Amino acid sequence: MNERMERVLEKMRKKGIDQLLVSDPLSIRFLTGIMVHPGERLYALLLRTNGTHTMFLNYLYYVSDTGFEEVWFSDMDDQIGVLTEHIDTKGVIGIDKAFPARFLIPLQERCPELKTIWGSDCVDGVRAVKNEEEIKIMRQASVINDMVMERAAAYIKEGMTEKQIADFIEAEYYKEGATGLSFDTIVCFGANAADQHHSPSETRTLKAGECVLIDMGCIWNGYCSDMTRTFYCKSVDEEQVTIHDLVRTAVEKAEAIIKPGVRFCDIDAQARDLIGEAGYGEYWKIRLGHFIGQEDHEYGDVSPINKNVAEPGMIFSIEPGIYIEGKYGVRIEDLVLVTEDGYELLNVVDKKYRTVG
Amino acid sequence: MNERMERVLEKMRKKGIDQLLVSDPLSIRFLTGIMVHPGERLYALLLRTNGTHTMFLNYLYYVSDTGFEEVWFSDMDDQIGVLTEHIDTKGVIGIDKAFPARFLIPLQERCPELKTIWGSDCVDGVRAVKNEEEIKIMRQASVINDMVMERAAAYIKEGMTEKQIADFIEAEYYKEGATGLSFDTIVCFGANAADQHHSPSETRTLKAGECVLIDMGCIWNGYCSDMTRTFYCKSVDEEQVTIHDLVRTAVEKAEAIIKPGVRFCDIDAQARDLIGEAGYGEYWKIRLGHFIGQEDHEYGDVSPINKNVAEPGMIFSIEPGIYIEGKYGVRIEDLVLVTEDGYELLNVVDKKYRTVG
Repeated sequence: MNERMERVLEKMRKKGIDQLLVSDPLSIRFLTGIMVHPGERLYALLLRTNGTHTMFLNYLYYVSDTGFEEVWFSDMDDQIGVLTEHIDTKGVIGIDKAFPARFLIPLQERCPELKTIWGSDCVDGVRAVKNEEEIKIMRQASVINDMVMERAAAYIKEGMTEKQIADFIEAEYYKEGATGLSFDTIVCFGANAADQHHSPSETRTLKAGECVLIDMGCIWNGYCSDMTRTFYCKSVDEEQVTIHDLVRTAVEKAEAIIKPGVRFCDIDAQARDLIGEAGYGEYWKIRLGHFIGQEDHEYGDVSPINKNVAEPGMIFSIEPGIYIEGKYGVRIEDLVLVTEDGYELLNVVDKKYRTVG
Repeated sequence: MNERMERVLEKMRKKGIDQLLVSDPLSIRFLTGIMVHPGERLYALLLRTNGTHTMFLNYLYYVSDTGFEEVWFSDMDDQIGVLTEHIDTKGVIGIDKAFPARFLIPLQERCPELKTIWGSDCVDGVRAVKNEEEIKIMRQASVINDMVMERAAAYIKEGMTEKQIADFIEAEYYKEGATGLSFDTIVCFGANAADQHHSPSETRTLKAGECVLIDMGCIWNGYCSDMTRTFYCKSVDEEQVTIHDLVRTAVEKAEAIIKPGVRFCDIDAQARDLIGEAGYGEYWKIRLGHFIGQEDHEYGDVSPINKNVAEPGMIFSIEPGIYIEGKYGVRIEDLVLVTEDGYELLNVVDKKYRTVG
């Protein structure tokens, strides 16, 4: 029995559930090392506190010797029927976050005595706390991210397009052994930086005096990095400096209180109160950060409504911003690891404003 | 009120549900023209048979003037609370296939009197039947697919890698105005063709006498194409010819009976019985086809367990295969449109075996 599985079973016991249906392919990979892309087909790992676990597998998934009881089915089988044969349909079953209504509603309709309850925290809570091996990998993914951010800063020149810079970053990642992007690289000039979903333009060119917001991350050994810095082309004006320093101070204040036992809402408040008191509250309406690991956004966030507390091994982003529509935007983002008695920054690229180009 | 929306409401009335929660971003795009990538955040369109519809939108989604009642929320809000304020929590609500347990379970836990039932067919049933405009677009997406398949057949040479051919296909798509791939292009040589999830290899080179299975599709104007052909490098042996002809006959027999009113399980049986009687049943365990539209795999399939009947305007794939592990595989796939009195093939590339290279 691996240690991760044992931690999940322990959480199930604490919660009082005997059976838990895990359907998120990345959670299954986390627990078993097996990766399947099931598309619209059923794929699940049924965990039982009695130690007998079952994998539900379509013949299309080329996996073998999972080490668990394997229930194989084909497109010709009734997938829900296959499930119900192997769960205790008169008991309680925990369900993970990813299980779609495509399966959940028919399961509920067919088993009126089955009690389906929230069980995602049993596995997501374990994924949120990284072990030594994962921490090593994520440190290295962020070392690559830092290195490529510095190269990007040196590469940027007035007149370049957003897309040109994004392409440069992507190519550098692959040179460093990354296998993919955590998300599509974001490069925004000037007013585009106020749009948090902006796609790099192939035609928009950089002008002196504009900000350059870069939000980027790569996948290395199956784990993600994610960092944002905001630069200024050739010069930076007084208002930009004021807002940049405000956002930088917000990141630093939030990071400074991170240690085991501190509530995420309190970490969030450090940044939110500062930005609110400075009169910019209306320009920042999103959460302060998100958990990260195998996915760029994992379950859990740093927000005013999350009353949970930080634990050693957790890794999440701290990324306040100020977004002024039609004008510009500033975001600064680090990844932070909670240590036994405080925190460790996974990103070391200087956060002070800096001119480039 | 648009015609698509009217068709969904009509299905809701027939099913006896007053409110339907649509969460699949492609279903929402289908009904409203609005496209959002919500990630892990809540995004939904609540349809009511009384004609008042509500969109649930995070401030991060840059959309405006949806024409519906808009309920805006931020990461600081309780998303489930926002939902429950706007639905009738003492009544019945239809849920679509994509709604994840992340939201569904908390919604059910918080509203014990709410009856959540399967409502996906109300919108998926409408998406399955294409209108004239969609049919025109999908015809053209398949014209491009046919053209590029012919170019690929002419391009293939002994000694090339699978990846080289996949890259060629992708580049040709973009030349023809495609905006993306329906799925990662599949190119398999020899034994790799038995693996239905094979990724094109950068090192595996083509040898004379081997099969070349190509499964490919592009996105054009937001709609997908999808076709498979199997070729042979320089020569084809007797066993390959026998199996190829069997698969080709299976496609043709299945296609031949397609018309409104025919059950999907009966279309599937045409191919399955033929392959089974020829003694190859164990080498083909998957469904005969899948629906297609904005996504390569849309809701609905052609399989032994689907007793629904074909309707004019439906578009789906017919793709039997024979996969002999360690040896080779043959798949032949067309997209088919159901017409008023029969069917129309969207793919015209010859299905007979052919040598290339």
